[in-house]
Amino acid sequence: MTAEENRMDQPIGVAVIGAGYWGPNLVRNAQATPAMTLRYLCDLDTDKAHRVLGGYSTVRVSGSLEEVLADPAVDAVAIATPAATHLPVAMAALRAGKHVLVEKPLAANYADGHRLVREAEERGLTLMLDHTFCYTPAVQHLRHLVRSGEIGTVQYLDSVRVNLGLVQPDVDVLWDLAPHDLSIFDAILPDGVHVTRVAAHGSDPIGAGRACIGHLTLELSDGVLAHVHVNWLSPTKIRTMIVGGSRRTVVWDDLNIVQRISVHDRGADLTPADLGEAERRQAIISYRRGETVAPALPEREALRGVMAEFAASITEKRAPLTDGWSGLRVLAILEAASASLAGGGEFVRVRDARRPAEWEEAVA
Amino acid sequence: MTAEENRMDQPIGVAVIGAGYWGPNLVRNAQATPAMTLRYLCDLDTDKAHRVLGGYSTVRVSGSLEEVLADPAVDAVAIATPAATHLPVAMAALRAGKHVLVEKPLAANYADGHRLVREAEERGLTLMLDHTFCYTPAVQHLRHLVRSGEIGTVQYLDSVRVNLGLVQPDVDVLWDLAPHDLSIFDAILPDGVHVTRVAAHGSDPIGAGRACIGHLTLELSDGVLAHVHVNWLSPTKIRTMIVGGSRRTVVWDDLNIVQRISVHDRGADLTPADLGEAERRQAIISYRRGETVAPALPEREALRGVMAEFAASITEKRAPLTDGWSGLRVLAILEAASASLAGGGEFVRVRDARRPAEWEEAVA
Amino acid sequence: MTAEENRMDQPIGVAVIGAGYWGPNLVRNAQATPAMTLRYLCDLDTDKAHRVLGGYSTVRVSGSLEEVLADPAVDAVAIATPAATHLPVAMAALRAGKHVLVEKPLAANYADGHRLVREAEERGLTLMLDHTFCYTPAVQHLRHLVRSGEIGTVQYLDSVRVNLGLVQPDVDVLWDLAPHDLSIFDAILPDGVHVTRVAAHGSDPIGAGRACIGHLTLELSDGVLAHVHVNWLSPTKIRTMIVGGSRRTVVWDDLNIVQRISVHDRGADLTPADLGEAERRQAIISYRRGETVAPALPEREALRGVMAEFAASITEKRAPLTDGWSGLRVLAILEAASASLAGGGEFVRVRDARRPAEWEEAVA
Amino acid sequence: MTAEENRMDQPIGVAVIGAGYWGPNLVRNAQATPAMTLRYLCDLDTDKAHRVLGGYSTVRVSGSLEEVLADPAVDAVAIATPAATHLPVAMAALRAGKHVLVEKPLAANYADGHRLVREAEERGLTLMLDHTFCYTPAVQHLRHLVRSGEIGTVQYLDSVRVNLGLVQPDVDVLWDLAPHDLSIFDAILPDGVHVTRVAAHGSDPIGAGRACIGHLTLELSDGVLAHVHVNWLSPTKIRTMIVGGSRRTVVWDDLNIVQRISVHDRGADLTPADLGEAERRQAIISYRRGETVAPALPEREALRGVMAEFAASITEKRAPLTDGWSGLRVLAILEAASASLAGGGEFVRVRDARRPAEWEEAVA
Repeated sequence: MTAEENRMDQPIGVAVIGAGYWGPNLVRNAQATPAMTLRYLCDLDTDKAHRVLGGYSTVRVSGSLEEVLADPAVDAVAIATPAATHLPVAMAALRAGKHVLVEKPLAANYADGHRLVREAEERGLTLMLDHTFCYTPAVQHLRHLVRSGEIGTVQYLDSVRVNLGLVQPDVDVLWDLAPHDLSIFDAILPDGVHVTRVAAHGSDPIGAGRACIGHLTLELSDGVLAHVHVNWLSPTKIRTMIVGGSRRTVVWDDLNIVQRISVHDRGADLTPADLGEAERRQAIISYRRGETVAPALPEREALRGVMAEFAASITEKRAPLTDGWSGLRVLAILEAASASLAGGGEFVRVRDARRPAEWEEAVA
Repeated sequence: MTAEENRMDQPIGVAVIGAGYWGPNLVRNAQATPAMTLRYLCDLDTDKAHRVLGGYSTVRVSGSLEEVLADPAVDAVAIATPAATHLPVAMAALRAGKHVLVEKPLAANYADGHRLVREAEERGLTLMLDHTFCYTPAVQHLRHLVRSGEIGTVQYLDSVRVNLGLVQPDVDVLWDLAPHDLSIFDAILPDGVHVTRVAAHGSDPIGAGRACIGHLTLELSDGVLAHVHVNWLSPTKIRTMIVGGSRRTVVWDDLNIVQRISVHDRGADLTPADLGEAERRQAIISYRRGETVAPALPEREALRGVMAEFAASITEKRAPLTDGWSGLRVLAILEAASASLAGGGEFVRVRDARRPAEWEEAVA
Repeated sequence: MTAEENRMDQPIGVAVIGAGYWGPNLVRNAQATPAMTLRYLCDLDTDKAHRVLGGYSTVRVSGSLEEVLADPAVDAVAIATPAATHLPVAMAALRAGKHVLVEKPLAANYADGHRLVREAEERGLTLMLDHTFCYTPAVQHLRHLVRSGEIGTVQYLDSVRVNLGLVQPDVDVLWDLAPHDLSIFDAILPDGVHVTRVAAHGSDPIGAGRACIGHLTLELSDGVLAHVHVNWLSPTKIRTMIVGGSRRTVVWDDLNIVQRISVHDRGADLTPADLGEAERRQAIISYRRGETVAPALPEREALRGVMAEFAASITEKRAPLTDGWSGLRVLAILEAASASLAGGGEFVRVRDARRPAEWEEAVA
Repeated sequence: MTAEENRMDQPIGVAVIGAGYWGPNLVRNAQATPAMTLRYLCDLDTDKAHRVLGGYSTVRVSGSLEEVLADPAVDAVAIATPAATHLPVAMAALRAGKHVLVEKPLAANYADGHRLVREAEERGLTLMLDHTFCYTPAVQHLRHLVRSGEIGTVQYLDSVRVNLGLVQPDVDVLWDLAPHDLSIFDAILPDGVHVTRVAAHGSDPIGAGRACIGHLTLELSDGVLAHVHVNWLSPTKIRTMIVGGSRRTVVWDDLNIVQRISVHDRGADLTPADLGEAERRQAIISYRRGETVAPALPEREALRGVMAEFAASITEKRAPLTDGWSGLRVLAILEAASASLAGGGEFVRVRDARRPAEWEEAVA
């Protein structure tokens, strides 16, 4: 048995970097994942890290990223530091040969994100985005419904994510909330979310210095229109996504805890084109008003699924569901949205963030 | 007692023009309004008119608009014919000295609408729009909350009106549904809805030949942003309007029959400007998370209120709540929205449809 | 063609008796039913009757029941007078050879109701209860689900009907509201609702002099337990019925206007009896957690269906869905419930109100 | 400084007994309570205890209750073992001088529960019930609304707790679920829940060998009626409590995560008694249809509050909110309910479980 084979049998050694808002969730779920051993919680503020772990933990605290990355028992890191630090922290981890799970957004801009994706591919390391929502039972089911063809071809997408949320000090509401919607689009569409153009409108009615309300209109590469409404100022929480299909339309209401997903056999159809002109003018549209089916969804924590996919992608040496490219596609849309917002709301072209075919050979 | 004084004591003689989709509702509510006497139901298709009245009615049917307008017992007409006919029918009625209540939209375009408004003002006749939603208890209460200052200054407006609706043969979803939202904005805002620019995005995923999904972004003259989402293809019905204010935010969910209006003491505020720079950067935003109050609203049919306001405005010789100018403001926004949609979604300037000051004298 | 045959081609002449709370609904729906001609609205207070008809009606008003019953153009009457008058009014109508539709409850007590049923059978006339809810699309679908066997055998019934309702001057909340629930049970169960014993608990916390809150526990003849909770004092309206079946369980939430009926493949099952004792003790219960299906229900007014069934039962000379026997079964339960309430809540035996087999011959 | 004073400054040493369904929650919350130090997780199945703690914990596992109780560092135990073991485990703990927090129900029967209460009082130790729901923000607010007199005097109580739940092997649905409702009644009513008589109806439609559906009707000592509906077989989850008051009525819908508590100014009132007889008969009831207020409730875990109250009651040497007597009152009702169920549903008298006045002296 070789040394590497030997290692394969052992849990993946993990360090969580960042003990702020999200770090405790990573700590808890890493501990609960059998395929992992949590080695460190790393934060410059070691007191904060100790508080996160509580008084009963055997996990080590470190204030030094170098120390953590130098430890051969650490195979992978989960990064929950501010977005502006994703590039240096993730790059250091990759260069130290560690697999990387990183909070959204992948990086502060597309170019930085692209460097991380390139670095990971060249080194054959997993680079995964913690697009947590993609691992909920609801999105997993949506993904199945869309990809299996059960709802027909996708005709439109509409997502609303509003709540009284914390006005972020560094980013506007588009960068704070829309990554959730965009990463879900990316997870459920058969070939990822490929947006040609985006228009963004925003508003800052309280004078916060950045958009607190945002509307994104996305033109997808196949002509489909998608819309995203995000809002930090709404007194009521709404989290609803509609995926309109040619055969069925799915409504995902994440706050309806007894029926999150509803698959509606309701819609309008164009009658077949071989009618005579006079008939077509009269009867051009027909309506389906059939039943609604709500699938039984399991209850499980999404972040547990993130951890399981991170571990599996490392062990199986394959791209995770939410790989660096999906993170890059989200970044590309956000960058174009910011340009549209700055430019007065016109449509702005979005970079193509598909994995180039030539990379296959270069990397392989 | 003069002949006119004598007439004042009598109910207003009314004819309903058009026995199609909405006409029966006008017939029923005109009959139930004590200040009115319904004289005619007028439709080219007199069989249809007879069917609407049923077999137990004493109301006269006429197939001739001329006959109806020539009858001195008819003081006023309520028009529920296709939008394209609003100009000739309403103009004929005004020229015959009749007061006019007309379905939305006022006319097929702004210029036609303007001619009707001018004609009515010159003749001293009531020209009223049947913006039915404005007469619901919910909108009446919203209007009170906004105009009394209870919610502070309006910071944003958001309206969603989606359902599996009939794809109209002559107009797109913006012209079909958005007049409701726009006329409500006009009714509740202190000085009517004054929009400087509008951007429209739309989509026709079923190939109906016109937009079935539409998004309007409105820049109001005081810098407030409003958004309207209308959709004929949604399998679920949503009718929600959020009116964000500096002190309170109102959510109107018209499908929540036990709590249509919720007034939330929840929101984010900027802290006062007299803090030092360092403090401001840290504590710039504060949050209110107070109680929600749902007022008791009466249950009454909105169209009953339309008829009462029509009768009162005639009797009291005053402008009705939803007068011709409000109809014109809605038309101005719709025309600009169509231009934006045709032009690729950029912002388009909206005509100013305020009553010009010089008209006061000219007409008076 | 005989005179009777000739009459068959003509609409059924109808008189509505009673212009109070429910009468106007009967008037409106009788007028809208093609198979009927509304001849009279009859009320001692003829002014009230005129007000109900409004100023545009050709329907005659009469203050004399005798006049109405003497008119050969009247084939049938729809009675919406106070319950205490049902016996004399309905009996007079039957003796005059008129078919009868009567508001719930059939009569003030079982004996009176039985006399009406007997009279109608002997004369070969239709005696129908206006159990309006039984003609809603929701109950029609429930009836189909139960009778077709789609939900398996019925295991339990639970109905909640609470609201801030008018405290009635003459009856308690059980007699006011529970007839709805009981008549629905009767309509959906394969052979009608056959209750062996009932226990009633009630409460009058505001000192109204009669129970304002009531709970009924019904033992059905096949051992099934049903429960009904009615309440005049609840600030929120709840109208929910659960029909538990061995294969599916149906939840009918009448206030959920977009999904009134939900058919749940969820439940607990006993494992088959051929397991060994040890296994049975461990694994005795299994759980189904399958999908939920919400059928598409048409929107139509239930009272339209009542009128159509009344007309059809007359024309086709057959018992209507909600015939006198169903009204009698409801009365039998209510009488026993009152006895239980008076007696301190113990179970009280309920009369068997099945149509006796010997009646078949006696009447035929 | 005496030894005892010294101990007062230190966290309370706690052992959790039982690593089954609820134990892990006790472990987590004890660890998160600053006033406590978790010393042991004790379970006969030490492997299970190790699994609950996970691989990163410094908490000790013990398979021996004796060992745990013999350790002077253990001041208090939290017991989450099966109900049948509560008496011996809690008694042993009390006799070892430990304070006790015990899962509901306090014991398998009233007599056993009473022995525990007596033992704790005689030893001056805290005996507290983990009536978790009583520590939710919703119940805390309900308690405030009732006790402050804001809703006037309580007129009725109605609680529904239905779901597809696990059919328990040892107890029926009344013993499994109703303790929640009864303990909440006890916590919110000004002087605890004092029930004079209870009637219980139940049903076992799947043949599980014990009631799976249960209805309790409770007569409170002040004449108020309360009703509890518990059900293991409902496909939909309902958790609604209505507290009807003379001035306001509160509806608590625990599944409405955005508006759990609604305080309704809606109800029916009897008009004052000084009206003449004729007037009273006409206008006996008046209706309030005012606004609804939904308070802002904090989001916090109820079990955290349980632990804080346990710690505070020990430190402050006072009875906790949910003391042994409250547990005893719940037991008294459950015992009478079982007797009613066995006896065919008649009302059964409930023991008075108020703390006897003479105990004050005896114990003090």
